[in-house]
Amino acid sequence: MDKTGVAIVGASGYAARELIRILLGHPGVTITAATSRQDESPRLDELHPSLAGRIELACEGFDATRIADKARIAFLALPHTASMAIVPGLLERGTRVIDLSADYRLRDPSVYAEWYGHVHTDPGRLSSSVYGLPELFRDRIGSANLIGNPGCYTSASILGLAPLVGEGLIERTGIIIDAKSGVSGAGRSPKPAYHFPECNESLTAYGVGRHRHTPEIEQILMDVREDGPLEVIFTPHLIPMDRGILATIYAQPKTPIDERELLALYRSFYQGEPFVRVLERIPATKDSAGTNYCDLTVRVVRGKILVISALDNLIKGAAGVAVQNLNLMLGLPESTALA
Amino acid sequence: MDKTGVAIVGASGYAARELIRILLGHPGVTITAATSRQDESPRLDELHPSLAGRIELACEGFDATRIADKARIAFLALPHTASMAIVPGLLERGTRVIDLSADYRLRDPSVYAEWYGHVHTDPGRLSSSVYGLPELFRDRIGSANLIGNPGCYTSASILGLAPLVGEGLIERTGIIIDAKSGVSGAGRSPKPAYHFPECNESLTAYGVGRHRHTPEIEQILMDVREDGPLEVIFTPHLIPMDRGILATIYAQPKTPIDERELLALYRSFYQGEPFVRVLERIPATKDSAGTNYCDLTVRVVRGKILVISALDNLIKGAAGVAVQNLNLMLGLPESTALA
Amino acid sequence: MDKTGVAIVGASGYAARELIRILLGHPGVTITAATSRQDESPRLDELHPSLAGRIELACEGFDATRIADKARIAFLALPHTASMAIVPGLLERGTRVIDLSADYRLRDPSVYAEWYGHVHTDPGRLSSSVYGLPELFRDRIGSANLIGNPGCYTSASILGLAPLVGEGLIERTGIIIDAKSGVSGAGRSPKPAYHFPECNESLTAYGVGRHRHTPEIEQILMDVREDGPLEVIFTPHLIPMDRGILATIYAQPKTPIDERELLALYRSFYQGEPFVRVLERIPATKDSAGTNYCDLTVRVVRGKILVISALDNLIKGAAGVAVQNLNLMLGLPESTALA
Amino acid sequence: MDKTGVAIVGASGYAARELIRILLGHPGVTITAATSRQDESPRLDELHPSLAGRIELACEGFDATRIADKARIAFLALPHTASMAIVPGLLERGTRVIDLSADYRLRDPSVYAEWYGHVHTDPGRLSSSVYGLPELFRDRIGSANLIGNPGCYTSASILGLAPLVGEGLIERTGIIIDAKSGVSGAGRSPKPAYHFPECNESLTAYGVGRHRHTPEIEQILMDVREDGPLEVIFTPHLIPMDRGILATIYAQPKTPIDERELLALYRSFYQGEPFVRVLERIPATKDSAGTNYCDLTVRVVRGKILVISALDNLIKGAAGVAVQNLNLMLGLPESTALA
Repeated sequence: MDKTGVAIVGASGYAARELIRILLGHPGVTITAATSRQDESPRLDELHPSLAGRIELACEGFDATRIADKARIAFLALPHTASMAIVPGLLERGTRVIDLSADYRLRDPSVYAEWYGHVHTDPGRLSSSVYGLPELFRDRIGSANLIGNPGCYTSASILGLAPLVGEGLIERTGIIIDAKSGVSGAGRSPKPAYHFPECNESLTAYGVGRHRHTPEIEQILMDVREDGPLEVIFTPHLIPMDRGILATIYAQPKTPIDERELLALYRSFYQGEPFVRVLERIPATKDSAGTNYCDLTVRVVRGKILVISALDNLIKGAAGVAVQNLNLMLGLPESTALA
Repeated sequence: MDKTGVAIVGASGYAARELIRILLGHPGVTITAATSRQDESPRLDELHPSLAGRIELACEGFDATRIADKARIAFLALPHTASMAIVPGLLERGTRVIDLSADYRLRDPSVYAEWYGHVHTDPGRLSSSVYGLPELFRDRIGSANLIGNPGCYTSASILGLAPLVGEGLIERTGIIIDAKSGVSGAGRSPKPAYHFPECNESLTAYGVGRHRHTPEIEQILMDVREDGPLEVIFTPHLIPMDRGILATIYAQPKTPIDERELLALYRSFYQGEPFVRVLERIPATKDSAGTNYCDLTVRVVRGKILVISALDNLIKGAAGVAVQNLNLMLGLPESTALA
Repeated sequence: MDKTGVAIVGASGYAARELIRILLGHPGVTITAATSRQDESPRLDELHPSLAGRIELACEGFDATRIADKARIAFLALPHTASMAIVPGLLERGTRVIDLSADYRLRDPSVYAEWYGHVHTDPGRLSSSVYGLPELFRDRIGSANLIGNPGCYTSASILGLAPLVGEGLIERTGIIIDAKSGVSGAGRSPKPAYHFPECNESLTAYGVGRHRHTPEIEQILMDVREDGPLEVIFTPHLIPMDRGILATIYAQPKTPIDERELLALYRSFYQGEPFVRVLERIPATKDSAGTNYCDLTVRVVRGKILVISALDNLIKGAAGVAVQNLNLMLGLPESTALA
Repeated sequence: MDKTGVAIVGASGYAARELIRILLGHPGVTITAATSRQDESPRLDELHPSLAGRIELACEGFDATRIADKARIAFLALPHTASMAIVPGLLERGTRVIDLSADYRLRDPSVYAEWYGHVHTDPGRLSSSVYGLPELFRDRIGSANLIGNPGCYTSASILGLAPLVGEGLIERTGIIIDAKSGVSGAGRSPKPAYHFPECNESLTAYGVGRHRHTPEIEQILMDVREDGPLEVIFTPHLIPMDRGILATIYAQPKTPIDERELLALYRSFYQGEPFVRVLERIPATKDSAGTNYCDLTVRVVRGKILVISALDNLIKGAAGVAVQNLNLMLGLPESTALA
């Protein structure tokens, strides 16, 4: 098979590392370019020592023409605002983009401005970009040129709530998402809050009421079923572990509902999905860590519905779903190189 | 000062170890007896290597007369059902009891039977035992002969909710307590779920809808303000760390309320309390780990009240509050030996 | 390609889980049988929740004839002494064996008896089993019917020392191997020493002077170069992490030697090896965790040679090298399904 | 008792925090001043949230006269080179100094320059400063005006080796100290190597052959017994935990020696020491974590002596021993406020 060239734009972070690792085992693509803002043009195995002996490619500075020459698809693993500065140039040169930043996830530029504190400089493309969650938008992903790859908390939250919202079973306000994430979700830049002796053996909430995944969750759930406003109270917590997100979701059913029926609904909703596992038991993050699975279960407690959703924030929450999107865009089996 | 003799009944667990450690620095008491169900009469520093060089006392088998001879106050750090088998004998011999098990916390023996799966064999004392949470029941603790020392999750939850319930500010049903605990809360017996390679780097919920601290939280909050039923949805999670509980609590205010007013209410409610710290910032468990503090803050998000409560499950959640109770019972300054 | 049937005998442990996970991605084999000593014939995804959705095979009790009917190669992931009870029956029925226990690693049954405390019941096969470390014994592995798959500490130690011993550069006594391992190396059975609150946030040495990997390391290094006795002082330590071994090795060179020359020697010795990476930098276990690599570097400090060797105890130290051996036995590319 | 005023110069780090915590429970001293190089004059409980409710003192910029007015003893918890810039001014104003940096530990300014890369600007005081390890230099500490408080690795190493060196039992070259430390030993400044997702679940050696505690260990051990050069090979490792050092020490006895005799020697050598525990069992760091104890045991393996030494790097390795020194300097019982 002739391999498709792909580029990693912004190769130094954890999601980029996972992406490279997965792509090295992908039979249909080859990494032809990688960029980094560091001056020294580091090799990928210098940025990521775990890749020693696996790839010798050196990073280059970003140049849209050069990337477009080498790659039919570019993964952007950049901070928000950095993506929207370069997406237009890539698309104009014919390179399709899977953007792991938040820049092309929100449809409304004013919502972007409100939550990210920046004016969106490419608002025209917000309506044509496709939200890259295959379980909900598979049909549109294959032909898309620009994918807004979902956030990690958002995938866990949306996959957990989509059956309930989709079937119109719950009240659309007052939905509580108490989410917990390993520290790799905070990125690779050393900061006091992620200094080992600070966050090890500790547990805290952060960004209460103002985490940026809030409007993303709400927008997509409103897409799942258009039925007026939908509002979540999203509380992220930092957990002393590398990987994994667990979202504990509390929703009010419109009418009393049975736990077994709910479980059956979830099984039916995700029937045939290669990467969603509906479980009887309560998922532990470890069982999906290192994989592209999202594990889900559902309970009824004193009349409230509890959904518990777990995934690996760097894989199903970032690099793995990006490869799912890649596979769909290339017409390959969706689970190629993923497990 | 003539030191009061105290006994540790059930000396092998983590709460007992913390208790011994604290009491070794207490100027007013001396540990005169310790018991263990192990046949070999281990020394305390064999049970707990960290105590090497600090105490040489050997455990004995439990005998009510012998304990009563040696100790004016006995701490019981036994599994539930084991406490109620020996409390009557101790009290009859004049030894006052601080029971760290759940046996004397619930007032209604049928609730005990329902949640603990055992008939209570000493139901007559349930109404006279005092719930050992000094912030709420200080006045009754000093003269009590039998203290039901609170559970770890319950203290975090009750201290977080008491101002709201006490002032009648929130709806009394649908209260969500999403609680997270370090693994020491599960005790010292090795079990698969607490085997290091199982729970390290993992995160899960457990006991969803059926954790035994649920009725305890509800009973005490109903005591705080008698106003009909009160119902919580309590979801505990296991966190890969030794110590600490964080409870994230979601409550519906009866009428809209301002965050600053709430914070002021909490400050006022806990004014002068030596071991409750009302904070502006969101507490991290590490900041109360190893101490007897409960750290609290409060937020309003989309109309819901969020309370975040943190404490060390083995200290403020067990051994530390037990020493608070001891101090009150002996008429000593409440914070003696505690920090 | 017609897939070769393989069996997992003893499927409940961590090495078995990793083996199953790797084999599920192997294009040349299929798992046709698995056994467990549990009565209930659990499915593999019940034993290992992470395998949900990936394999539905149920375990059976061990029966040599049934296994031999289904599998051309059997992986034995059993405790020591359990393997030697069943290897003869499998070999006699034509099934080749890769034994992950220690039963077929030591050539001398009296050494086995001394260190393992059991008489070896199949001593006749000790001389014909092949030690499954491909970097040293590749030529003999392909045609072997019985592989003694190496221990985790031993692979790290032997790969670290083989170039020095092979070239006759160091004194053969007084070699110090100060080794550190994550807790998964201790197996899946809950025991006090591996209870999370005991080993988390702690560090200790164990088995000082009497760990069973000692004679295995010595035997193989004596095979590397026959030149009289060879003696190591092997000190294992338990590290609060899941995975990874780091061996810090101290050896006395016979004559002064230069660090650059040593590094060149290591590079030359492991030239072309797919799973040994000789590095300038000091390896961190995380960089080989989840992979089949052994990372090595070498230093000279005050006249002593230091070798630092790192690998994933469950992969390069167990399941991964077992698949390397499988590939060699089947005539497949050695790195099939491994990375 | 009239309390002695003490100052914390450099209050923002972990050792300073532990020091403050210990001093808050000290009956004989009161913290009258604290300094920080931060512009905003933070309060101590802003620097260290765990101190909330315990002390309200605000930091000031350093001014020797002001500190000397307020404090009879100053603890310096500054980076190396910063201490020697201010020690002269404090001493001249009559304030005694306990310096937790390395500036006054090495006697030879050229050794300081070689290992620390700075010319010592106060070389004249190197000969009069006293090395603050009470177990070896108690007699000189009481009357000292300037204490060089020992390094964390050095205390573990020196206490482990002093009996052997003191009795002249071992070869004085080729001593191997394979040391392992929790991450708090690296300080509080966020750096890539201590970013949680980098060092969690990982293990590595660092500073091989060039760690600055090497000459300190050698100098003090040569003081213990003057008998020509003494040379150690010191290899530190970073362990994914907050606290604790374990040093595994390998030494060659001059003549064969029995393990029981060695243990007896250690017991005799440390007879009456309040903070050294000589144990039969192998120490785990957790058992001394949070305490001022150094735990030691000794083994003989294949003719080599192994010493295993454990302590809490922030307490016995820094703040705790500093308080031991304080107590000696004030003529108080040495274990005041320590356990």
